[in-house]
Amino acid sequence: MANEKIPYKIYLEESEMPKAWYNLRADMKNKPAPLLNPATHQPMKAEELAPVFCEELIKQELDNDTKFFPIPEEIRNFYKMYRPSPLVRAYCLEEKLGTPAKIYYKFEGNNTSGSHKLNSAIAQAYYAKKQGLKGVTTETGAGQWGTALSMACAYFDLDCKVYMVKVSYEQKPFRREVMRTYGASVTPSPSMDTQVGRKILAEHPGTTGSLGCAISEAVEVATSSEGYRYVLGSVLNQVLLHQSVIGLETKAALDKYGIKPDIIIGCAGGGSNLGGLIAPFMGEKLRGEADYRIVAVEPASCPSLTRGKYAYDFCDTGMVCPLAKMYTLGSGFIPAPNHAGGLRYHGMSSTLSQLYDDGLMEATSVPQTAVFEAAEYFARAEGILPAPESSHAIKVAMDEAIKCKETGEEKTIVFGLTGTGYFDMVAYEKFHDGKMDDYIPTDEEIAANFAKLPKVD
Amino acid sequence: MANEKIPYKIYLEESEMPKAWYNLRADMKNKPAPLLNPATHQPMKAEELAPVFCEELIKQELDNDTKFFPIPEEIRNFYKMYRPSPLVRAYCLEEKLGTPAKIYYKFEGNNTSGSHKLNSAIAQAYYAKKQGLKGVTTETGAGQWGTALSMACAYFDLDCKVYMVKVSYEQKPFRREVMRTYGASVTPSPSMDTQVGRKILAEHPGTTGSLGCAISEAVEVATSSEGYRYVLGSVLNQVLLHQSVIGLETKAALDKYGIKPDIIIGCAGGGSNLGGLIAPFMGEKLRGEADYRIVAVEPASCPSLTRGKYAYDFCDTGMVCPLAKMYTLGSGFIPAPNHAGGLRYHGMSSTLSQLYDDGLMEATSVPQTAVFEAAEYFARAEGILPAPESSHAIKVAMDEAIKCKETGEEKTIVFGLTGTGYFDMVAYEKFHDGKMDDYIPTDEEIAANFAKLPKVD
Repeated sequence: MANEKIPYKIYLEESEMPKAWYNLRADMKNKPAPLLNPATHQPMKAEELAPVFCEELIKQELDNDTKFFPIPEEIRNFYKMYRPSPLVRAYCLEEKLGTPAKIYYKFEGNNTSGSHKLNSAIAQAYYAKKQGLKGVTTETGAGQWGTALSMACAYFDLDCKVYMVKVSYEQKPFRREVMRTYGASVTPSPSMDTQVGRKILAEHPGTTGSLGCAISEAVEVATSSEGYRYVLGSVLNQVLLHQSVIGLETKAALDKYGIKPDIIIGCAGGGSNLGGLIAPFMGEKLRGEADYRIVAVEPASCPSLTRGKYAYDFCDTGMVCPLAKMYTLGSGFIPAPNHAGGLRYHGMSSTLSQLYDDGLMEATSVPQTAVFEAAEYFARAEGILPAPESSHAIKVAMDEAIKCKETGEEKTIVFGLTGTGYFDMVAYEKFHDGKMDDYIPTDEEIAANFAKLPKVD
Repeated sequence: MANEKIPYKIYLEESEMPKAWYNLRADMKNKPAPLLNPATHQPMKAEELAPVFCEELIKQELDNDTKFFPIPEEIRNFYKMYRPSPLVRAYCLEEKLGTPAKIYYKFEGNNTSGSHKLNSAIAQAYYAKKQGLKGVTTETGAGQWGTALSMACAYFDLDCKVYMVKVSYEQKPFRREVMRTYGASVTPSPSMDTQVGRKILAEHPGTTGSLGCAISEAVEVATSSEGYRYVLGSVLNQVLLHQSVIGLETKAALDKYGIKPDIIIGCAGGGSNLGGLIAPFMGEKLRGEADYRIVAVEPASCPSLTRGKYAYDFCDTGMVCPLAKMYTLGSGFIPAPNHAGGLRYHGMSSTLSQLYDDGLMEATSVPQTAVFEAAEYFARAEGILPAPESSHAIKVAMDEAIKCKETGEEKTIVFGLTGTGYFDMVAYEKFHDGKMDDYIPTDEEIAANFAKLPKVD
């Protein structure tokens, strides 16, 4: 079909959907650094992780060698309810920009969780069910992950306990109601349910919570409840593995029409979307079969790749989780109020951190107001109302397309549109009313947190 | 492909998308009654409608004979950004219900307006642009129509003035922000902008507005502003014509796999979705080529088909619009608080009213709590969070599937899933908290409004 007119949306047939996830680590010469036991600083073994995580997921987490993991049929059937997601040719955006560039985006927002998070949520729920568990616990900030996990647990009839950062719980009651619709229990964090919650509330009675604290509560509940495990929506290798379905579909759709991208762009918080989108392309690059520019986009308010340090750090504030080697701003770093809640994480996936350190991908950061300007421009051209997180990628894709207009180059740009912004209208309102915050941390603020990194030889 | 396994989602190719809208009226023996001038009670002529509506749309409105109207290329290109919409085989719902029935739904919620309203909004904006207008005015209640029109106007660079029922404006700030994102001005109605608004505010200072009042304001602004016309999202023949794209795609997708439905179900407020979904099937029925059970579902709180009178009535409370012959509860009927905002209209499309009166379709009404129970059941099975309006159709489709379980019949059920419920979480919250209202009007309440119907010979 190489010479056909490219449709507005390329949908794969169900028979063309990926049957296995691709494990990028298998093609990496420099493997991502292992998780360390926070007490001994020795690599975590499967049995040490077993009280916290599901067995099959631990295998996926620790396996740097197996290239493909078959996707179980039950998960493939669930995927068929909302996948394949469309690869959209942004004809209207191209025309509005007047660019000779060809812009494509992989749109992951056409499901009720409103984002790509469902791809991993359903896998994690499946393995929990298979292990005979009663339920799972997790934390959620912006709410996409909590929503996705609630949907997945409803499907497999698993109990789902979500610890939601208190400020989000109060400011995003609609997200909370969606989770309740899918049968999850949603608790504002910090809560009186846990030791760590009670301790924090005693020390800081008025606190509105943090992601780090919610993680600590969710882990405590999982490890102290019979038949429960903890699950996480980003950062981990297993999550990137599941999210490879995004990149595999993207590549299959492009191949179908003989399209070779020049630049691949994704927003990056913990790395789940970016790691999934770029996986098969980075694989080709690692194997020397093709070359692509790959760009991670992060908020200027939380710039872990562009201004962080590549070091071992705590994944949570409570310091109950293993240490991970990653580009980090320090686990004590509190990003300024910033509406892309999904990108407000102090660290970055170990896999992506290693690839970045090896010079295999680029990173850039963008300020919030410019992101919303791009979001609104995109919405008016392409119809879709993008999530603030996704709009970071839109901003940089548009910038690259404008450069093409100046140089006359007909580059092919692919970016990940991870989700929709229906639950982010408070942020859009601030933007419309000129009240958006563009705070960028100073070098001193960032350096202060580096001082608190754990000492690992 | 008749014997292939039916995929979870049937997507048409772009080349299979409809190139013309189908005008159901052309196949009706008993044509819908004409709009009447409210003063003279004579059929409205094109020139009388011209100050209010766009020229091409008036032609479409009054034409009972032309069977197909070609869809202009500009509109087809816009459709390609979010259409074809999927026809989904509800495998998971069937399994959960344990029914031998085969259930399909046409899902119209995969666009930012969150509903099928965009199909007509883009057509109306196109004809306004073609006529060289500066902009359009409209009213919105629940907000789907206002959002759809804002998106369409942004695309064609038209000004868009939306009068939003004040209570919705205040209770649904997020809907308002979506419209602002697409550049529309949104005014709470009644407002001080118009004579009719000022009059109502003087008489009822604390009023929270009504759809009827918002229509009157939008019409006044359109007729008193140079280069503006008024547009409407339901009830009118032209709207049903544009919405026929839903039914045409549904039929093409079913035909592709040799599927013949037994029952077709849609929710009905003003009739835009139902009229569009059933159009080609009803056409076959009218021409004696096939037979189907066709079922309109309305809320028990606003039962125009099941308990209304077939008579000429005012379309708006301000009585500035033409009279339409329809099943009506009387233009003074105020439905009890009910969260399916899009179904709270006192009347019903003239075309559907005539078909119902001729015994060509059935109608049934369902109470609100049962609708939300069905919505939640559906959400947990199929993933999609349905709009309250759409959930009326879900409820009856599920009831029919349960009947099949009892009788062992393998009926094929098709229903219209008109949209998503992301902006309806307040209603879901009331449902979760057991605070949902199930008020059904008494015979006396309904009869009282019949007394106020205009006298037309």
